[in-house]
Amino acid sequence: MMEKFDVHILGCGSAIPTGRHLPTTQVVNFRDKLFMIDCGEGAQLQFRKQRLKFSRLVSVFISHLHGDHCFGLVGIISTMNLLGRTAQLHLYLPLGGTEVLKPMIDYFNREMTYEVVYHEHDTRKQEVIYEDRSLTVETIPLCHRIPCCGFLFKEKPNPRHINREMVDFWKVPLYELERLRRGEDFVTPDGTVVPNERLTKPADPSRTYAYCSDTAFHPAVAAQVLGVDVLYHEATFGEDNRNRAKETFHSTARDAAEIARRARVKKLVIGHFSARYEDESSLLREAEEVFPQTVLARESLVVSVG
Amino acid sequence: MMEKFDVHILGCGSAIPTGRHLPTTQVVNFRDKLFMIDCGEGAQLQFRKQRLKFSRLVSVFISHLHGDHCFGLVGIISTMNLLGRTAQLHLYLPLGGTEVLKPMIDYFNREMTYEVVYHEHDTRKQEVIYEDRSLTVETIPLCHRIPCCGFLFKEKPNPRHINREMVDFWKVPLYELERLRRGEDFVTPDGTVVPNERLTKPADPSRTYAYCSDTAFHPAVAAQVLGVDVLYHEATFGEDNRNRAKETFHSTARDAAEIARRARVKKLVIGHFSARYEDESSLLREAEEVFPQTVLARESLVVSVG
Repeated sequence: MMEKFDVHILGCGSAIPTGRHLPTTQVVNFRDKLFMIDCGEGAQLQFRKQRLKFSRLVSVFISHLHGDHCFGLVGIISTMNLLGRTAQLHLYLPLGGTEVLKPMIDYFNREMTYEVVYHEHDTRKQEVIYEDRSLTVETIPLCHRIPCCGFLFKEKPNPRHINREMVDFWKVPLYELERLRRGEDFVTPDGTVVPNERLTKPADPSRTYAYCSDTAFHPAVAAQVLGVDVLYHEATFGEDNRNRAKETFHSTARDAAEIARRARVKKLVIGHFSARYEDESSLLREAEEVFPQTVLARESLVVSVG
Repeated sequence: MMEKFDVHILGCGSAIPTGRHLPTTQVVNFRDKLFMIDCGEGAQLQFRKQRLKFSRLVSVFISHLHGDHCFGLVGIISTMNLLGRTAQLHLYLPLGGTEVLKPMIDYFNREMTYEVVYHEHDTRKQEVIYEDRSLTVETIPLCHRIPCCGFLFKEKPNPRHINREMVDFWKVPLYELERLRRGEDFVTPDGTVVPNERLTKPADPSRTYAYCSDTAFHPAVAAQVLGVDVLYHEATFGEDNRNRAKETFHSTARDAAEIARRARVKKLVIGHFSARYEDESSLLREAEEVFPQTVLARESLVVSVG
């Protein structure tokens, strides 16, 4: 069975609140570690409602410093302090973000039970800002009114699966297995080379998730998210508001679908819906015309990656 | 018919979020002007959900600078900016609050369509901080871990009702009616004094609402809220957590009821419930033993004052 790689939608509205959507927040569950992407007002309430565990949250990535993407930060950080968290929390902010948010976080958390580690990223660069044994996260430069980037979650290459029968047949010692998983051949004591493919089965494919919000239609994105399993792309407006999208540096549903089509992704999720849409069926229709494998984000939706 | 004087509960939980309650926010609707008391995270979402109108919101009163009472401020202020509000918004903060909150509000609202007018109050003093033709709001010093006060909303004396028949009988000219409403006697052209009580009926009683959160049991409060129509008093804990209440400068449900009993208020609403209570029936029971006219706050509850 593949290890967990899910995206939880906690909010997929835009700046003006509605009764239907919360502002943008997502949580990536990668092998039971939780990575939050953006943190709109109410994120901690929805986090709790969706039965996610604060203790599993390791990092928060903020795409840009518009309120609907970060007003929930000080709340969730304060709550974890009240709960007595001890593990570090890593906070990834656009350049200058620390200066804006840290004073507020510090004021309301004078005695802190854990450390918030501040990192800043240059939203104009495409670079790896997080890496562990099995995952990297890199920035995706976007085109918005203020510096803004998306995030590309890439699972590292998985180990190949041992073919138990063949390994027994060739009497491969236990300490050699790790090398086989990495794809190396086996050499018997008498010098025979057994090709790796005879001893192992292919690794599970490495899975990828790309988050792109907020942005005007920005074709350069397609190159960076080429072939990802799941692309979340903002679709604030429909074609009825194409001019408004242009003015505000947002995308239409069709723009989002066009990026997905060019990048040949497996699945597109659209969100960041303007408050003016009573339901988003027209946005879905417009996206599907360009890219059929589209779904609408909604609160509590869980999307499996890969 | 009496003019509107209602209290809308938008949130009545405490600092740790639960699926059941939002942090503390209330809105007083007094003659269709809205006054917000405290502004926890998610306040603007709940405001919208309860179909209150941003355009009618004139002031926000913050009791103290703990996050669960003010993390929603920057969000609601930003949203009204996006909506193009032009009317001033008056923000009443404890001393020092401007310095804490204004930088954040300013950063996220570089181009502001309306003015936020900052006022600060000394939470240790009992003083009128707001006054208009028909209402005063005064601070109620409370006893918490940091400077904190409640707010007493007092309707000004209402005019007496004109007794149409008697006024016609005595041929009172139109321009005298306002004086009669204020309680003055009428003197006829021939010098006869007609006592006011013969020309008018009693005014509607002036109504009063007191908000007290957060506070340890603080008997001085009772004197200030003597006889109010509705007292909201925090009741974070039950008797099972009396020590915890003491340590954290909060009240138990019984404490709240004891204040209500001593103040001989007409109705008590308890709230600010700790996340540890799955439902608050035990708190209600404990309060009712001391003060029977008690109700539990809950989101969307509307309490009529008077």
